[in-house]
Amino acid sequence: MSGNTHGTLFRVTTFGESHGVGLGVTIDGCPAGLSLDVEAIQREMARRRPGQSRIVTQRKEGDGVELLSGTFEGKTTGTPIGMVIYNQDQRSKDYSHIYDKYRPSHADYTFAAKYGHRDYRGGGRSSARETAARVAAGAVAQQLLAGFGIKIRSYVDQVGDIRTGKEHEELDLSLIDSNDVRCPDPEAAARMEEEILAVRKAGDTIGGVVKCVISGVPPGWGEPVFDKLHADLGKAILSINACKGFEYGSGFAGVTLRGSAHNDAFYTDADDRVRTRTNRSGGIQGGISNGEDIYFRAAFKPVATIISDQESVNEAGESVTVVGKGRHDPCVLPRAVPIVDAMAALVLADHCLRARVNRL
Amino acid sequence: MSGNTHGTLFRVTTFGESHGVGLGVTIDGCPAGLSLDVEAIQREMARRRPGQSRIVTQRKEGDGVELLSGTFEGKTTGTPIGMVIYNQDQRSKDYSHIYDKYRPSHADYTFAAKYGHRDYRGGGRSSARETAARVAAGAVAQQLLAGFGIKIRSYVDQVGDIRTGKEHEELDLSLIDSNDVRCPDPEAAARMEEEILAVRKAGDTIGGVVKCVISGVPPGWGEPVFDKLHADLGKAILSINACKGFEYGSGFAGVTLRGSAHNDAFYTDADDRVRTRTNRSGGIQGGISNGEDIYFRAAFKPVATIISDQESVNEAGESVTVVGKGRHDPCVLPRAVPIVDAMAALVLADHCLRARVNRL
Amino acid sequence: MSGNTHGTLFRVTTFGESHGVGLGVTIDGCPAGLSLDVEAIQREMARRRPGQSRIVTQRKEGDGVELLSGTFEGKTTGTPIGMVIYNQDQRSKDYSHIYDKYRPSHADYTFAAKYGHRDYRGGGRSSARETAARVAAGAVAQQLLAGFGIKIRSYVDQVGDIRTGKEHEELDLSLIDSNDVRCPDPEAAARMEEEILAVRKAGDTIGGVVKCVISGVPPGWGEPVFDKLHADLGKAILSINACKGFEYGSGFAGVTLRGSAHNDAFYTDADDRVRTRTNRSGGIQGGISNGEDIYFRAAFKPVATIISDQESVNEAGESVTVVGKGRHDPCVLPRAVPIVDAMAALVLADHCLRARVNRL
Amino acid sequence: MSGNTHGTLFRVTTFGESHGVGLGVTIDGCPAGLSLDVEAIQREMARRRPGQSRIVTQRKEGDGVELLSGTFEGKTTGTPIGMVIYNQDQRSKDYSHIYDKYRPSHADYTFAAKYGHRDYRGGGRSSARETAARVAAGAVAQQLLAGFGIKIRSYVDQVGDIRTGKEHEELDLSLIDSNDVRCPDPEAAARMEEEILAVRKAGDTIGGVVKCVISGVPPGWGEPVFDKLHADLGKAILSINACKGFEYGSGFAGVTLRGSAHNDAFYTDADDRVRTRTNRSGGIQGGISNGEDIYFRAAFKPVATIISDQESVNEAGESVTVVGKGRHDPCVLPRAVPIVDAMAALVLADHCLRARVNRL
Repeated sequence: MSGNTHGTLFRVTTFGESHGVGLGVTIDGCPAGLSLDVEAIQREMARRRPGQSRIVTQRKEGDGVELLSGTFEGKTTGTPIGMVIYNQDQRSKDYSHIYDKYRPSHADYTFAAKYGHRDYRGGGRSSARETAARVAAGAVAQQLLAGFGIKIRSYVDQVGDIRTGKEHEELDLSLIDSNDVRCPDPEAAARMEEEILAVRKAGDTIGGVVKCVISGVPPGWGEPVFDKLHADLGKAILSINACKGFEYGSGFAGVTLRGSAHNDAFYTDADDRVRTRTNRSGGIQGGISNGEDIYFRAAFKPVATIISDQESVNEAGESVTVVGKGRHDPCVLPRAVPIVDAMAALVLADHCLRARVNRL
Repeated sequence: MSGNTHGTLFRVTTFGESHGVGLGVTIDGCPAGLSLDVEAIQREMARRRPGQSRIVTQRKEGDGVELLSGTFEGKTTGTPIGMVIYNQDQRSKDYSHIYDKYRPSHADYTFAAKYGHRDYRGGGRSSARETAARVAAGAVAQQLLAGFGIKIRSYVDQVGDIRTGKEHEELDLSLIDSNDVRCPDPEAAARMEEEILAVRKAGDTIGGVVKCVISGVPPGWGEPVFDKLHADLGKAILSINACKGFEYGSGFAGVTLRGSAHNDAFYTDADDRVRTRTNRSGGIQGGISNGEDIYFRAAFKPVATIISDQESVNEAGESVTVVGKGRHDPCVLPRAVPIVDAMAALVLADHCLRARVNRL
Repeated sequence: MSGNTHGTLFRVTTFGESHGVGLGVTIDGCPAGLSLDVEAIQREMARRRPGQSRIVTQRKEGDGVELLSGTFEGKTTGTPIGMVIYNQDQRSKDYSHIYDKYRPSHADYTFAAKYGHRDYRGGGRSSARETAARVAAGAVAQQLLAGFGIKIRSYVDQVGDIRTGKEHEELDLSLIDSNDVRCPDPEAAARMEEEILAVRKAGDTIGGVVKCVISGVPPGWGEPVFDKLHADLGKAILSINACKGFEYGSGFAGVTLRGSAHNDAFYTDADDRVRTRTNRSGGIQGGISNGEDIYFRAAFKPVATIISDQESVNEAGESVTVVGKGRHDPCVLPRAVPIVDAMAALVLADHCLRARVNRL
Repeated sequence: MSGNTHGTLFRVTTFGESHGVGLGVTIDGCPAGLSLDVEAIQREMARRRPGQSRIVTQRKEGDGVELLSGTFEGKTTGTPIGMVIYNQDQRSKDYSHIYDKYRPSHADYTFAAKYGHRDYRGGGRSSARETAARVAAGAVAQQLLAGFGIKIRSYVDQVGDIRTGKEHEELDLSLIDSNDVRCPDPEAAARMEEEILAVRKAGDTIGGVVKCVISGVPPGWGEPVFDKLHADLGKAILSINACKGFEYGSGFAGVTLRGSAHNDAFYTDADDRVRTRTNRSGGIQGGISNGEDIYFRAAFKPVATIISDQESVNEAGESVTVVGKGRHDPCVLPRAVPIVDAMAALVLADHCLRARVNRL
């Protein structure tokens, strides 16, 4: 049973490979009456686009989103929103150097093992090209959420060993897009950029951590016991290429605290809202939002494509050398930011609708 | 839209609160022909049971599983397996001290905000009592998987600051149940037990990390792009009470490596199986199992119930003190182990079936 | 992939066989705050119960519904409602006369072909005993719908060749339960009862038609293009044992009309509601309710169990005689009425919730 | 919750309106390794196309299917198959005569009531134009099924009062496409054609019945208790525009028979296959295929668009006249045939895959 649909009420289905004719996405369940800004969708696409800066891959990709259905006179009609993104250059390049080889730490071997019939052109469906459709859908979700006053802001918190070393409250998140790294700490961003350029020069790659902060979510979103809000966020983020870990609130570091130091005391604020004095819960308690900022961190491994020869095997099981070549991202983090934004938006849009049917 | 169903083909739906009449679970989609060992289900229940040792809560709970349907002459028939677990003592205790108060870092406030109508008896559906039904279902899944040679072994890797400091390959996993902590490193286990007892004496609680190792999964399980195997594992594990983080393979630590150091080289082993020389991928590449051991780590926060007074608010928004009392787990980790086993088993049983429809 | 879950937002999962320990149902998604009348559930069970009159089977079945979860202080909490119904006498009777034989027009052969492992005791999961769980769930749905002013009333419209010959508007639907047949036309009911008794005396069975009328549904329920309201009703009704056909509005008879005679003209009534002068649409247009009464008819074949010997084969494929014996319904129609009510209620409760997320 | 996805394992999601940019469909779950004949998809589109004969609408529609993903070197890869169909002329025609009026027995009023925001151009999503995407997906399903020896053949059995009066076994189904009506009884087809032309001349419309015969389905497909094979077929067929009724096997006529006359006796045929001497079960017993031909009938009402003035109301609730004009089908039956084929194929492809996970 294939897994190309995300969400239950705000339901997104994607298709498309890196070197096929095109990609696309259908959003089924976007409520009627939303004024849809197609330019804003395109702006999110531009944040994900290759070639946007010197620290990302210089590969060429088409990223023009064509809206085929689901709106009338600028507003959503409640019927499915269909969008397609054509691949710019789908003619078969020469893949003879890898067509029967399994690139280390790529999905070549597992796709072949699973389906028997492998599309070796640029990774096929396992390529990060696939996330273009997610970003288009996520941009629609972000517009839906904006109407509820919800803001999703992801940024690069760590590249290799270089960390901001700051909590999100200590940073000015309006600076996220002020540098190519998408790190709102200008000083750290400069060091990260330097590191990425060094890694690139070495023909190598490096990983890092994206942090995401979501503000404005009202109390009551999330569906225990299996579809807890953080569980759905975790799955969505882990489904992004290269993601190896997810933690929210106090996360892995919180396990060393005692309960008395970890618990978030409740109080009532000046606006008579129930609030917590600290936010180690990460805005989610028992799988349900509590009105505080939701925040999480996601680990991304170094990109598997490198410019050096690697030991591997081919389809016949013979020892081969995979020769390093081609254009690739030295560090996936800057381009991962809009994808994390998109996936978080898809989860929240879904739970926004799900929360509508909890009570009489 | 409620979220009490797990899985798509091996589909598990649970019900029940901590102080209602009982809990239960329906498994729809367990293939016909599986010899079901009811005693083995009960044994897993015993691993989760309160009162099993001096480092867990001494609360009394019924944990007898009654099998109502889905088997005939000892084998599954392909029809739904219904199981119920009655609560031993469902008479209303005196909850007057908390019925309108929100316990810090519990789900009291968020459940009230979501549903309007709150079951304040022992946390209702948000209680970890709910996981009893998961363990029963997971035990069935483990039996299904055992037939394919798959073994799932979770253990306590860290309590507070105390770590095994070892990789799972360095440990003898047959020792997991040899101590009350469920840590296969006897020396670390002893220190962890000491720490838990100290914390308990202080009326406090402490968190930790469970590691899970899954062996025997063949290449080809997992459903990109959204239902990648690790994404489904992540969601399932994050849905367990108190879980704050999930990482697989090299996880958060892997982000500091360069790609050339992180990639897992392929080779062909003596049995002509494609293998990787290292396993930073954690047995999953592109969201699909590659035949190596799958392993992940899960962070659990300190239990929120503590024996000290805490600042909070009541339903009217007034400042109140939540008085610490009652029996609780000083550390959830030893009892979390069978729950992690269960959830991992539910995910793998589901993907075991899903992988059957990938090819003609 | 098993099919024991009904609905998407008001989601019902059933389990249980005719001669296992018991049956049960979980309702996940019933909104919080509904005052649940357990007696009313039991009353619907009584309408389905064997032995309720001399024209139905005299078999003994337990039908006491035990509510295990999902309510607190008489109201639903939004968490799953679990209910079980124990089988009264689950000790193995002597089934040696049929255990390896396929009863004609039963599901014995197809279940064996599908699952390999057949529960031959009274049909196992294929027995109409399974519908007891549906009726319990449907009774909850009916209570939910009653709060919206929606009434579902099914009745027997035809038994064999005996028809009421009247439209539902010409009948007094308060008379449905005034006779054992559940036909609100007393004169027709008397003839139907006579026919059923004659058939029974002959050791034979007879079919018929149930009509269902649903009033009070507001405009706007139903989800094109695949989950149109009548399509979901059709599936739910066709899933009832012995059901062979479904038609709504003008149905099969309407195909002979010309469009000019078939169309329902719109007008505005005294309460400023948009209405139709006629209702050949059956209250549904384009798959969405239009505010008029919804009505449909369902065909039920004669019960397959008869008191005469029949030609068949056994598991080895050998010719055998299936000897007629045992207690059975001469006509399923009177007991089908509450099941049709239940299934219609499940569909409408689901669409009641689904309609909440159509607009901003 | 929107309803634009069909199926569970062979999962089809459609989008698109009659006068938007285009329509499309994603098939998620088609197994890898199927040789896909794109020409054959196009041939099915041609069977549905307007303007194909003088008895259907002469409206112009684009029906070129563009395949965007999911195949490589002519075979499916197991990844989603994306297809789009652009609308030929999407420039806004003049709809001022109907934009705020509700056409009788159309979905104008119910869509407006549901979504608030209505696309009045040619019916928007409620237009039968939407079925083009179903036919494209159904053609893929038919190719999948052909590999298992399964054939789906629908035909027109009745137009208005004119019936073939024959069982499908008495007809030569290879003649279905030999005439414009798609009725394999040449004599009846001639009379039906005459009737349709007369109706058309009168500016009116007429309904009818499509019968579908499915051969080659092995025993064991269908998922009780809710997703019985005939229940899923019923829903799929009822979801087609203008469909008002569904019956399978003996259907509504069978209710007048006694059980002794209705039951299908089993025997073993020369090839040692278990067979039934008669087939009143319609190839399905207990919701599971038994290996005999599956057959059903579907009622289609007369098309709602007619060339005469009709009483109605507008959005303000004022009395208005809907003036008859435009090109429409005098009888939907000939073009409904490929749509019934498509929907039946989608259901069977889904159950083909679902049946794979029934046993160990």
